[in-house]
Amino acid sequence: MLSDVNDIAYRRMIASHPVLTGVRPAHEVLPGLRRNLILHAAPPATWQTMSETMRGGMTGAAMFEGLASSAAEAAAMAAAGQIEFAAAQDHGAMAGGVGSITASLPVMVIEDRSNGNIATHFLMEGLGKTLVAGACDAEVLARLAWFRDTLAPLLDAAIRAVGGIDLRTIMAEALTQGDELHNRNRAATNMLLNRLAVGLLGLPADPSTHRRALDFIAATPQFFVGTVLPAAKLMLRAAHGIPGCAVVTGIGANGRDCGIQLSGTGNRWFTAPAEVPRGILQPGFSVVDAAPACGDSLCVEAAGLGAAVLPAAPALWPAIGATAEGAIRYHADAQTLALGEHPHYRIPALGGRGAPVGVDARRVVATWTLPVIDIMIGHRQPGIGMIGMGLVSPPLTCFQQAVAALDGGYCPQLPDSDPPGASAVPVSKLGLDSRMADARPATTVA
Amino acid sequence: MLSDVNDIAYRRMIASHPVLTGVRPAHEVLPGLRRNLILHAAPPATWQTMSETMRGGMTGAAMFEGLASSAAEAAAMAAAGQIEFAAAQDHGAMAGGVGSITASLPVMVIEDRSNGNIATHFLMEGLGKTLVAGACDAEVLARLAWFRDTLAPLLDAAIRAVGGIDLRTIMAEALTQGDELHNRNRAATNMLLNRLAVGLLGLPADPSTHRRALDFIAATPQFFVGTVLPAAKLMLRAAHGIPGCAVVTGIGANGRDCGIQLSGTGNRWFTAPAEVPRGILQPGFSVVDAAPACGDSLCVEAAGLGAAVLPAAPALWPAIGATAEGAIRYHADAQTLALGEHPHYRIPALGGRGAPVGVDARRVVATWTLPVIDIMIGHRQPGIGMIGMGLVSPPLTCFQQAVAALDGGYCPQLPDSDPPGASAVPVSKLGLDSRMADARPATTVA
Repeated sequence: MLSDVNDIAYRRMIASHPVLTGVRPAHEVLPGLRRNLILHAAPPATWQTMSETMRGGMTGAAMFEGLASSAAEAAAMAAAGQIEFAAAQDHGAMAGGVGSITASLPVMVIEDRSNGNIATHFLMEGLGKTLVAGACDAEVLARLAWFRDTLAPLLDAAIRAVGGIDLRTIMAEALTQGDELHNRNRAATNMLLNRLAVGLLGLPADPSTHRRALDFIAATPQFFVGTVLPAAKLMLRAAHGIPGCAVVTGIGANGRDCGIQLSGTGNRWFTAPAEVPRGILQPGFSVVDAAPACGDSLCVEAAGLGAAVLPAAPALWPAIGATAEGAIRYHADAQTLALGEHPHYRIPALGGRGAPVGVDARRVVATWTLPVIDIMIGHRQPGIGMIGMGLVSPPLTCFQQAVAALDGGYCPQLPDSDPPGASAVPVSKLGLDSRMADARPATTVA
Repeated sequence: MLSDVNDIAYRRMIASHPVLTGVRPAHEVLPGLRRNLILHAAPPATWQTMSETMRGGMTGAAMFEGLASSAAEAAAMAAAGQIEFAAAQDHGAMAGGVGSITASLPVMVIEDRSNGNIATHFLMEGLGKTLVAGACDAEVLARLAWFRDTLAPLLDAAIRAVGGIDLRTIMAEALTQGDELHNRNRAATNMLLNRLAVGLLGLPADPSTHRRALDFIAATPQFFVGTVLPAAKLMLRAAHGIPGCAVVTGIGANGRDCGIQLSGTGNRWFTAPAEVPRGILQPGFSVVDAAPACGDSLCVEAAGLGAAVLPAAPALWPAIGATAEGAIRYHADAQTLALGEHPHYRIPALGGRGAPVGVDARRVVATWTLPVIDIMIGHRQPGIGMIGMGLVSPPLTCFQQAVAALDGGYCPQLPDSDPPGASAVPVSKLGLDSRMADARPATTVA
């Protein structure tokens, strides 16, 4: 019976077919998004329990939305309950990093052609200070205003002019061009840019605006990831709601807690304190500066991309502190947890093997093998932003709680041969190089 | 003294900085290109000695140029000496495959910013029947006319509108995106397309023509290779003319013979019968259909790209019948022959090592290590075109003759430990998989 439900989940996930259909104001496509509500990375957080970094992102969003004229005013309103918060994944949206979605912010709209579901994500802001990294100043707000007033309507028109953009095709090709589609999206961004350029050529001529749009995207190598998070979520959502199924269909970290949802346990989040990613920090920063993991992008690995296909992206290895051997091991671990291989997303460096689709929480619990995610590392203090890149895993206890809830008190048999020790993710397992010797030990889980 | 001249050659080669500056009619940039002259892949050939496949390409070129109205008429004129032939590499041009350059054909103009040299190549024709593969019918001629009358002037204007396009930047990035820059140029083509799109946006609006141009390039994944051959040749030419230097500065195959030039031996070609590439043939063809190697693209590997960096392009391996182990070995062999590593062209899958720059013919002769080239396989009969892809090496005797001429009768000491056997390139050395078991044995060299 378990293999039956996993088979149903697998077939639904690989049928998911993401297409970029437009860039619209969030309130148009997310009906529940009232003006004083800010959507953030899962699991759900309150202002009182929110991390400092995420608070920085939220006050910036409130200023962009015109709810407050300063960070202090936004903080006071949030503390008084005048600004509300919810997890983006509970509202048809995705929020990478400490990013946020508010009513007037433009979002990329991704439709699953296999079932009509949609998912959305904000436009990536590029290099320098960004709201997605928790920074907010006049430059950040001016860029977001340009997104809202100029870039988003232009991209929306270009996407419609070409009849939508097939993301599955781009993602499949990008995996043969050195992208793993989480923290490396250079080839995919170039392919998206080509399609957008064709669309722009069909619009009334406005060369300087068109050129600024193309130049911005060309200078934003992670632009495409704003479509990958929704595409990954659509794959997970296709498998949601199967009774008895332990496949992960929601996963995220909000800078304080990490949480997961399973297919068979409805909309409940199973949470535990998020770990601090270990990796490569920029000069001048040390591990004590690093914030716990944050962002809905953990869904990328749950879908079978990102670190699960890290052998596809050798140029990313040194940036996150991984070795070739580590990359092979993360993929092998992901295969241990997966339902099967993806027929479209194939990795030439692995002899054309398909990406490992899905994470079966029962296998996580039974084997103590955790998904590995490559991720941006943010500073603990708001306003500083990204300080490095590395790897992180969700705590084992999230999976143990979720499986117990699904199976009504089910307690996994501990394997005799592979004691987990005191650490959820032994540093030795992550295959990190010597630069990471000073990394913070993994959080101990009960 | 030998290391001194190699050091000079190495420094000149890595200083070479290719920039795409325009697309012009060939006669404008190649002053010696009179109307009845057809340039083809080196070494120089005559109509009487030319292979059937190359004759097919040459008669097509004569028809495009209006020298003859049929293939039969072109052949008769060639036999009578009314149409002349010369090696493109001897005239500032490059001819991939059995392609050709005639006076009115548009060529991509590549300038070496470090020394002002230029090199040129025709526009790649895409999929289906093509002159570069030796086929010529009404469709092929119509496409070339569209190149001449519409596409080339448009691309020329777009390139000028962005002030030229830095190829070194694109090539360096492409090596991190799964291209080896000989038979895989997908990422590089996308990057070039992005730059051209920006240029097109600044031109007077003609959306349908602009869109047709972008769509054509987007559907031609090898479009960029038309810039790689000149860029490779510029790197080789930078090292040409150093007294006593045995670095290969010219190399090509014309479907019958293979030839090389050395830095220290002027413009003399040292030739031997070209081998038939071994690899993967399309269904319905067998090794007896395959023509000997043809094209100036052997310069790509002599510069240190293509099969010399095959570990960069895992998606190409199955198409040419190579394994991961083979890819590593061709790179190691290229390192054996090379002058040093390229500071810009680096391979993430090899820990960021630089591409192996240059081929020292003395080391070829002393170690019996031959450059390995990945290459299109053409049919022996004209008009059929490409039937597969594979690997080939230039015959050892070319290098032995050239080194002997350079050193005035120098005879290399045969290494005791590694007898070459009867075959110039033992099949076992090429690391080809079992699909190649029926491949034609390597040509025996004296």
